[in-house]
Amino acid sequence: MSAHPRLSLNQATIKHASLADAIAATKAAGISSIGLWREPVAAVGLDEAARQLADSGLRFSSLCRGGFLTATDATARRAAIDENRRAIDETATLAAAGAEGSVAALVLVVGGVPEGSRDLIGARSRVADALTELAPHAEASGVQLAIEPLHPMYVSDRAVVSTLGQALDLARPFPASVVGVVVDSFHVFWDPAVLEQIERAGAEGRIASYQVCDWKTPLPADVLLARHYPGDGVVDFATLTQAVERAGYTGDIEVEIFNADVWATDWTEAAIRTAASFDAAVTPHLPAVVPA
Amino acid sequence: MSAHPRLSLNQATIKHASLADAIAATKAAGISSIGLWREPVAAVGLDEAARQLADSGLRFSSLCRGGFLTATDATARRAAIDENRRAIDETATLAAAGAEGSVAALVLVVGGVPEGSRDLIGARSRVADALTELAPHAEASGVQLAIEPLHPMYVSDRAVVSTLGQALDLARPFPASVVGVVVDSFHVFWDPAVLEQIERAGAEGRIASYQVCDWKTPLPADVLLARHYPGDGVVDFATLTQAVERAGYTGDIEVEIFNADVWATDWTEAAIRTAASFDAAVTPHLPAVVPA
Repeated sequence: MSAHPRLSLNQATIKHASLADAIAATKAAGISSIGLWREPVAAVGLDEAARQLADSGLRFSSLCRGGFLTATDATARRAAIDENRRAIDETATLAAAGAEGSVAALVLVVGGVPEGSRDLIGARSRVADALTELAPHAEASGVQLAIEPLHPMYVSDRAVVSTLGQALDLARPFPASVVGVVVDSFHVFWDPAVLEQIERAGAEGRIASYQVCDWKTPLPADVLLARHYPGDGVVDFATLTQAVERAGYTGDIEVEIFNADVWATDWTEAAIRTAASFDAAVTPHLPAVVPA
Repeated sequence: MSAHPRLSLNQATIKHASLADAIAATKAAGISSIGLWREPVAAVGLDEAARQLADSGLRFSSLCRGGFLTATDATARRAAIDENRRAIDETATLAAAGAEGSVAALVLVVGGVPEGSRDLIGARSRVADALTELAPHAEASGVQLAIEPLHPMYVSDRAVVSTLGQALDLARPFPASVVGVVVDSFHVFWDPAVLEQIERAGAEGRIASYQVCDWKTPLPADVLLARHYPGDGVVDFATLTQAVERAGYTGDIEVEIFNADVWATDWTEAAIRTAASFDAAVTPHLPAVVPA
């Protein structure tokens, strides 16, 4: 079995799998790249995780996630910066352990409005300040900080960055190799400016990752778990994927699904289903793969 | 009891009240203006509704709602245009029946992506076409079509217009007296461009209505019912209200809340609570009222 060569399985899609099980499921589905999360990496320790990744022969497409940079309290703020420095180090180690074509990208979910605050504008400016603090360490480590705009329904409790344009504005002071953006179909498909901002992201060389999953309504009771396999909802993957391709992105494309039903599936089955949905909904809009 | 003179109670806040009961609750709370919905107006008939409104001495601040203009099917599309023409006529009648200062504004919730379609861009262009069809009748009737951008979590099933900037782009071909926009705090507070777009809306003379209610998480299972009294959530009413004022808006400010708990409250109590929450969260950011 062989999946599309640019497909990467983001580990969140099989959230309850250990790192070893996630790697096994990814390989069993013929997928050649994996996006990791910090928690399952920490569960086995970074060195062991890097060893498992190296042994797997898989590419590493990103680490999720840094961020949560909006605290007002000085101690909490310092702790967040330190945590992100560790995440940068982990990203560098894992990218070095992955197969050729691995990418040292740390996905940043920037954080919401602190409890009791209504100051969205202030929270955003603290994100900008934190990027300035983190950028030198990222640059020295060869890691790209990848700002992920999240759907505006998460603005108050998860990410005060809601659009690709806003993420690019935040990235502007930094070299593209140090601060990029994530284009996640679920989070940005609704944006009337999405196509021009994808073009801009490409022109600036800042597309760190293209992630695909689908949107459909009604939303589940927990809106964090509202994502679906590509093709199961209303996202126009033709238009988005072609825009990302035209923008010059040639890297891995992650499928990242938060969905209780998907999480309840056998991991290998979920990985196989991921590859099949990708082939049906995304592959037709990618350049033809020339057999090796 | 007397509420802020610019406060208007949008009838959706006391959804299950008849028109007569809604008028009585509004007056009992000392509120001097009301925003009506088509269904309770239709329940008594337009003429009777206009008579009740005229007898009440209340101003009329808007009619909810027209829109749902995204159908692809020619018959459904024609039916939607016809329905909106009737809504324009109702708006003109009700505005004429309201007290001095009434506003002939028809709020448009433009509609989502039709069932089975993924063509968001096409749906948006059908909204533009429908505005072109409706504008002459609105102009002849002295009615302003008020495009309401809805929060992007409603983009697929309710409104393919998600930002104020997008609404203003749609309005651009038409005179401001014919096509305006609604600034609803719940729908636009998250937008990184909201302050500049409020300024633009004011400069173009297109703010048809300023509506206030609050956002907080977790969202309820039915995300349509996620609105709260001003002050109960994270919306920064100081910044938004000052921006709307600076933009030159001097009209009524509606409180429109979709919330199962609010709907379960006694109507007069809900109206009184509305006035109190407005006084606490919004009034401090409005110019001082000079006693008559």
